[in-house]
Parts: sequence; C-alpha cells; structure tokens
Amino acid sequence: MSSSALAPEWLTTPADPNDLAPAVWPESAHRDAQGALVVAGASAVDLAQHYGTPVLVIDEDAVRARAVETLRAFADAAARHGGTARVYYAGKAFLSTAIARWVVDAGLGVDVCSGGELAVALAAGVDPARIGFHGNNKRVWELERAVTAGVGTIVVDSEIEIERLAAIVERLDAEQSVLVRVNSGVHAETHHFLATAHEDQKFGFALDAAERAVARIRELPRLRFAGLHCHIGSQIFGVAGFRESASRVIELHERLRAGGEVPLLNLGGGFGIAYTRVDDPSPIAALADGIVDVVAAECQARGIPLPVLAFEPGRSIVGPAGVTLYEVGTVKPVTVQTESGDAQRLYVSVDGGMSDNARPALYGAQYSARLASREGTGAPALARVVGLHCESGDIVVDHEYLPGDVTPGDLLAVPATGAYTAPLASNYNHIPRPPVVAVSRGVARVIVRGETIEDLLARDTGLDSGTGRPAGEGEG
Amino acid sequence: MSSSALAPEWLTTPADPNDLAPAVWPESAHRDAQGALVVAGASAVDLAQHYGTPVLVIDEDAVRARAVETLRAFADAAARHGGTARVYYAGKAFLSTAIARWVVDAGLGVDVCSGGELAVALAAGVDPARIGFHGNNKRVWELERAVTAGVGTIVVDSEIEIERLAAIVERLDAEQSVLVRVNSGVHAETHHFLATAHEDQKFGFALDAAERAVARIRELPRLRFAGLHCHIGSQIFGVAGFRESASRVIELHERLRAGGEVPLLNLGGGFGIAYTRVDDPSPIAALADGIVDVVAAECQARGIPLPVLAFEPGRSIVGPAGVTLYEVGTVKPVTVQTESGDAQRLYVSVDGGMSDNARPALYGAQYSARLASREGTGAPALARVVGLHCESGDIVVDHEYLPGDVTPGDLLAVPATGAYTAPLASNYNHIPRPPVVAVSRGVARVIVRGETIEDLLARDTGLDSGTGRPAGEGEG
Ligand SMILES: Cc1ncc(COP(=O)(O)O)c(C=O)c1O
Ligand SMILES: Cc1ncc(COP(=O)(O)O)c(C=O)c1O
Repeated sequence: MSSSALAPEWLTTPADPNDLAPAVWPESAHRDAQGALVVAGASAVDLAQHYGTPVLVIDEDAVRARAVETLRAFADAAARHGGTARVYYAGKAFLSTAIARWVVDAGLGVDVCSGGELAVALAAGVDPARIGFHGNNKRVWELERAVTAGVGTIVVDSEIEIERLAAIVERLDAEQSVLVRVNSGVHAETHHFLATAHEDQKFGFALDAAERAVARIRELPRLRFAGLHCHIGSQIFGVAGFRESASRVIELHERLRAGGEVPLLNLGGGFGIAYTRVDDPSPIAALADGIVDVVAAECQARGIPLPVLAFEPGRSIVGPAGVTLYEVGTVKPVTVQTESGDAQRLYVSVDGGMSDNARPALYGAQYSARLASREGTGAPALARVVGLHCESGDIVVDHEYLPGDVTPGDLLAVPATGAYTAPLASNYNHIPRPPVVAVSRGVARVIVRGETIEDLLARDTGLDSGTGRPAGEGEG
Repeated sequence: MSSSALAPEWLTTPADPNDLAPAVWPESAHRDAQGALVVAGASAVDLAQHYGTPVLVIDEDAVRARAVETLRAFADAAARHGGTARVYYAGKAFLSTAIARWVVDAGLGVDVCSGGELAVALAAGVDPARIGFHGNNKRVWELERAVTAGVGTIVVDSEIEIERLAAIVERLDAEQSVLVRVNSGVHAETHHFLATAHEDQKFGFALDAAERAVARIRELPRLRFAGLHCHIGSQIFGVAGFRESASRVIELHERLRAGGEVPLLNLGGGFGIAYTRVDDPSPIAALADGIVDVVAAECQARGIPLPVLAFEPGRSIVGPAGVTLYEVGTVKPVTVQTESGDAQRLYVSVDGGMSDNARPALYGAQYSARLASREGTGAPALARVVGLHCESGDIVVDHEYLPGDVTPGDLLAVPATGAYTAPLASNYNHIPRPPVVAVSRGVARVIVRGETIEDLLARDTGLDSGTGRPAGEGEG
C-alpha cells in the first residue's frame, strides 16, 4: 500500500532517512561510528540513559554563537550607516538563568515580559540596565519591582499603564525610561504580511494614539521617553513586513522629534528559523542588512539622524540549538482512505507529546525527526510521530519519512525545539515536565530540573483535612 | 463608533450585560445584594481577596450532582432494556484527589490515562477495580503499576501493547481484564460527525484489526477479553455520531461472540456542555436514552443480549462546575477596520490567560464572561477579554458584551472552566499556575495549591555550579 498519497506536497522522500539536514540541526550534530546521534559532543544514547526521556537538550555553544552572530550582524549593519544597534534576547522564547548568562556573555540584553521572567534575569545577575520589560497588562507589583530593580526600559502599552507607572515612580521617588509600543497595523506571518490601518490586537497604541501617549509621557517629570517600539510577529522569513512597519513607525518617529529627543527605535524580534528542511529563513546578516538599510534610507530621506536601533529576537537565538529526545513506545500502521485509494501512515508513538511541545497543537507547527539511537535500515516510510496523550491532536511531527524499521525502544530526536517548547509545557494527563540539559563539548548539566509524579501530587491538597473554612473569614 | 460590525453572528446584544445565563453558570450562581457574583454560597469578592486572582473556583456540589445525574441517566436508560450501565469519570478533564472522591461517592469509576493519573486515583482511595486505564502509548512501568494495583480494565490500543501486557502479567504472575479500543471510523464534532472506513488517528484498532486483536487476546491465558471500547470525540451535542459508531461496533461485538463471551461495551465520553449562551447541549438524560436505545435496538435486531454498557464522560461532569475569577488590569478601545467602516472593540486585559486556560488558543474555544465584583452600569460594549501573555493569540473570551464601564480593579468571571483548563495549564512567560478552590455551601478549601515564582525558580538549576559532567559518565 502506497503512503505517498498522504505526504504533503512539500515533503519529498529522502534518499537517506537517516540524514541530518543542516538547515534544522545544530552544527555540532552528527552520527558516531555506531550511527547514534551526537549533539554538542554528547551521544543521544548516553543523554537518554542518564536523564531519561523525554529530555530537551540544548547545545550551549550554539546558543552562544547565535547570540554573538546576531549582535554582530545588527551592529555591523548599523555601523555601515554610522549608527549603533542593541540586541535583547526575548526571554519568552525560553528563559532560564543559564540561558540568560549565555546571552549576556555574548553582549545582549534581556527582554522580559513578567515579574517571573524579571526574577529569572535578576537571579542570573543580568545588569538591570540591560533589561527591557514588556507586557500589555503588567501588574502593579511587577512595575514596582521593575522600577525598584532599575530596569533599563519599560515598554508602555496603554494609557492606563502610563498613569499607573507615573504614580509608581512618584511613590518610589524614582525615574524611569520608557518606550511606547506601537501597533503599526502591520502583521507579518512566515511567508507574507498584512498591513491595515488598524491591527485588531491587544498590544500597543495605534499610530495616532501613540503620538498622544508620547505627549503625555513628556508631561510627566519622572518618565523619560526613549523611543518607539514595534513588533510585527514571529517566525518571519522575509524583510518586507519589517520594512513596511519600519517606514510607518519612522514617520511617527520623525514627527515626535519636534517635541524633544527620540534616541532609540526598537523593531522587536520575530526572525524565523527552519523547522523542516524546506524552511529557508534568510541568514541573520541578510535580515539585519535588509532591515537596517531601509531604516537608514528612511532616516536619510527625512534628513534625521539614525536612532539607536534595538531588536529582540528570541526564537532565532535559542530555537535551532534545541533537540528533544524521545523513546518510541509503539509503531502502528494505519490505513487511510485517499482519493487515489487506500494508503498507509505509520503512527509512531513517543513518550512525550503536547505536554512538552504544544506548538503543533497550538499553531499547527511542523517539525522533523530522525532516529537517534541508531541508523535505520528500512526504506523511508511516511510517519506521523504522536505523543502519549489522550487526545487525537497530540502530534509531535505531523509528516516525516522515517526508516521503515523504526521500532519500540528506538530513540527519536526532534530538532529545532529550543524555543517556545519548555515555556509552554503543561502537565496534561499528569505527565511530569522533562528536564532541560545543556551540553557543551560533551559535558552535560541540567539547567531546568525535570519533574516527578510526586512533584505533581505535592500541589494536590485535596486530601488535607480541616482546611475548609467559610469563605470570607480568615486567611486563604 | 459602532461595535456591532465586529460581533459574530451568534452573539446578540444582551438586554442586561450583568445577567447570568443559566446555560453557562452553575445553578448556585447568583448576585448578592451588592451585585457581586456568588458561587456555591461564596462571594467572588471574598474568594478573590483570600485566594488572589486568577483562581479557579469549583462548585463541589455541582460536580457531585452532575456525577449522580449522569450515572442515574445511563443506569435508568439501560434498566429500561433490562440492562446495566457503568460510568467512569474521565480524569483527563481534571483530576485531583478531591474530585476523584466526589465522583466515587456518586457511584462512578475513574478512567485514567497515565501513571500520574493512576497515582492520583489511588491516592484518593479509589477502588482499583473501578479504575480503567487508557492510552495509546502506556509505558512499561505504567502497565506494571496498573496490573500490580489491580485496575479493573486496561484498554489495549495496539498489537505491540497486547504482547507487552501479556509479558508483564506473566512476569507478575497476574491476570488482567482488557478492553480493545476500536477506531470505528466515526469522528464527531460539536455539530456534525464524519464517518469514513478508516479514521486517520493514532488510537485503537480498525474494525478488522480489532477482530484479530481479540483473537490474539483470547489465546493469551492471563488476559481476559471483556469487550470493545470506542470513543468518537469530545464536546458532542447530538446522538447521531454515537449511534453511527455504536452500530458499527455492535456488528463487530456480535461477531466476537462466536469466540466467547463479550460482557461489556464501552462507548466512551464526549458529551458537550454550554460555553456560551447559544450552546444548546442535550440534557444528559436525553443523550443517555438516545444512545442506549439505539444500542438496545441493534442488539435486539441481532438477537443478542445487551452487554453491560460503560461510558466515560469528563467535560460534562466537571466543566460546568468551574468558574475562573480574574482581575481586570487594563481596558483599551481599539479601532478596527470593517467592511462597513471603522468599528470599536474593547480589549479588556485580565491577570491570567493562555497559561491558565489554553483552550481558546488550542481549539479556538469560545467562552463568556461577566463582571463578578459588581454589576456594571454602562451600556453593553463589545469586548475581547485577553490575557497578560506576550502573544496576540492570548485570548480568554473572544467575543462578549460587557458593561461599558468595565474598569481596572473589577473582577471578571468566566464560567464553564472546570474541564481541560487546569490540566493544560502552563507557566508560559513564567506565570505561576493559579490555585483551584472547591466551594460547598459557602465553605471554601484549596484542592490544588497555586504556585509562586519561587516554585518556578526551584526548577531552574542553572546557577548550581559543579553539576556539569561528561555525558556518559556517572548518574544524571
Ligand atoms: C514584543 C516581542 N518581542 C520579541 C518577541 C520575540 O519574538 P521571536 O521569538 O519570534 O524572535 C516577541 C514574541 O512574541 C514579542 O512579542
Ligand atoms: C478515551 C476517552 N474517554 C473519555 C474522554 C472524555 O471526553 P469528555 O471529557 O469530552 O467527556 C476522552 C477525551 O478525550 C477520551 O479520549
């Protein structure tokens, strides 16, 4: 029974279903003499044995290298126009104290979007001046903590927040530098962008409202307006959306110069990465040149100086450095009706799923996979890698050719899982979250501890007796 | 500026945007003299004050009543045909030891789908004989624990699992009753169902393969075949999908009687609930009658006795009993272009979001909302309730009319959040998961402890030094 009728158009049968496509694997990835996958100098077999499966493996040197490369790309691009650039790592992609240190070592700042992320960055020893604080609904205690800690910039998102922050800095006898988040009307997706007069989303100020917001900030003695901020989306491959958004925002930036200095312009993050071999993101240097050149050209055309440019990539720093290892539990051929007759799909169940990587379920995200404990010898078979959750949407890799002899006990590796996996992990079906292990030159260490079933039960207080009390009396 | 151009067709402007539609609120919900929401005898204002926000409030008596009602509905329906019915609560909807006790008190069993859920049920003191164990990729240790604990039935899902389980019972010198999960080719969604020869999903055996699986089980001396299992989907409103699936499965059930007894038939769960006032699920008694009648008719037509019928609802037991309380942080009118000109949407940000309720992001799920700390006085305004996460898809309630005077500091309540919220919760953006509080006759108690930022940092081991070691040496 043929399986090719079930393969999506973009997926071609590989000559060798054991190959490691350079687009999706960390540079360090290769197979050892036994055919086992090696990442950052450590064998997948050893890692799985010591840490169990699933395990999220992060190639530390890959993160460090990508951070360095990103900063250099934007700094070089800006320098060519006589300007400077800063890069903040967007912690939402995956923040831990270890990762915060790596990116700070590389010269980046850290962008946080909650009091929790702020706590991680501070615990890691990040210089508060190099922290930016984002969010559409920062709570009062979070703003207070940020101001007290001395974070470099707070990106204000609403009129209410401006007044709230002004009251806080007054109360704390402090000053605070702020950016104004702009909703430019441009929304970019991987392969295209949409531009409207008003984007229907929760973040920021429309362009006209932003002008009033800046005027208000300038009236407030303890707030210092540092510039505009704009983020158009995530997993973006081209520069067109950034160009469109930048030119809209620079028009406003120019107008604002009438009322005082506008030293900075933050264009956000969103640079795409390859999840499958057909994804073809631009190299970061090309993106940096493309974006910075258009900003410089706009500034020149308007006869205004190039502001300090800031960027906040998350996914493109940490995403390609992550590889998740799973163990195969069952393999099941399923017959499926297609227009050209019955076809077969191999359902390969692994010991994780939507609890450790929610992106397929959340975004229909595509990934790729390879056998990690050995090279398979079977002919390529169209497979769907699924998780162990009681839900049919629990898919790990929707479409992939795997060696037809894939079998229970095999280790399976899914690359490009460094971003937006661990942060979105759940305990669905009471599955403990896996550990995150950083590896550098063959040396591994746990940077986020895995959970146990006991950890989960520790939150369950249903068996404690005597805790019931009339609501409205006593302390909760 | 009008907002009605942005409202979906199904959402009509309410006469009173403070009303509590009986379809979506627990029966106990009402407003007190001050206009505050009361659930299970406790004021939302008191609950928020004692437990903070967000908080998931479960009306304990509503869960108990729904469990009792469900068992009675199926037992009565079966009794009318001279048969019996069992109901297992599907723990995946939301399992904690407290909830397990409530449903067991009501006469239900518990359906678990992982070693973690099994641990919760056992910790709650559920009689193992009344536990069913599901899953497409149960790990060896999970099967061992289930067999050792003496769970009533294990639902086998693949050929590999049959052999695996046979080896385990052999090794443990045990016996085990098993059901065979069937992929009937019927997949039901809320308002329609699809039927194919082969459903393209990971669970169960196709009808022909199931016959071979049963034959194999009957060869294995320590496995006892108890019957077929079939689950066609979730949040289903009508009986058509159940009927179609049941008649396909009964055909196989009849054939299997040639080889020995087939005492049981489990038709799964999936009964829908109302998330918004336009959802109109059938009462459980009507569903029970509709499903049981068709099974009985099929059996009669075939001249075979009615097997013991089993069902496993999750959502319909616990979903309607949950109400999440949030605090409003910001309110922002956003202008949106429509075909009939610019329109306005009120973005109301609350202090939770996709981390405590992933269903809108995962499934595009619709919910409703009401002010909980007071009655609003403003005219109904079209609102979108959004969370505090750095993601534009972080929506809590996509479309709802709220009083136009909704303002920061207000409490907002979202009903029908008892199922598939807490189990799917994440720490996205380092947001701690909220507590779950059970309330009965005004007495509240925490049944799942809320997290703190310190809890989150406790998993972050990046600052521990000396934990690095060559991968492949020593213990992980
Ligand atoms: C404001 C802001 N900055 C930066 C990012 C990081 O985006 P990415 O990880 O795609 O680079 C995001 C992602 O949502 C964001 O919302
Ligand atoms: C096998 C099985 N049984 C029962 C259920 C419970 O479904 P519901 O909560 O919709 O009743 C599910 C849900 O996915 C399931 O997969």
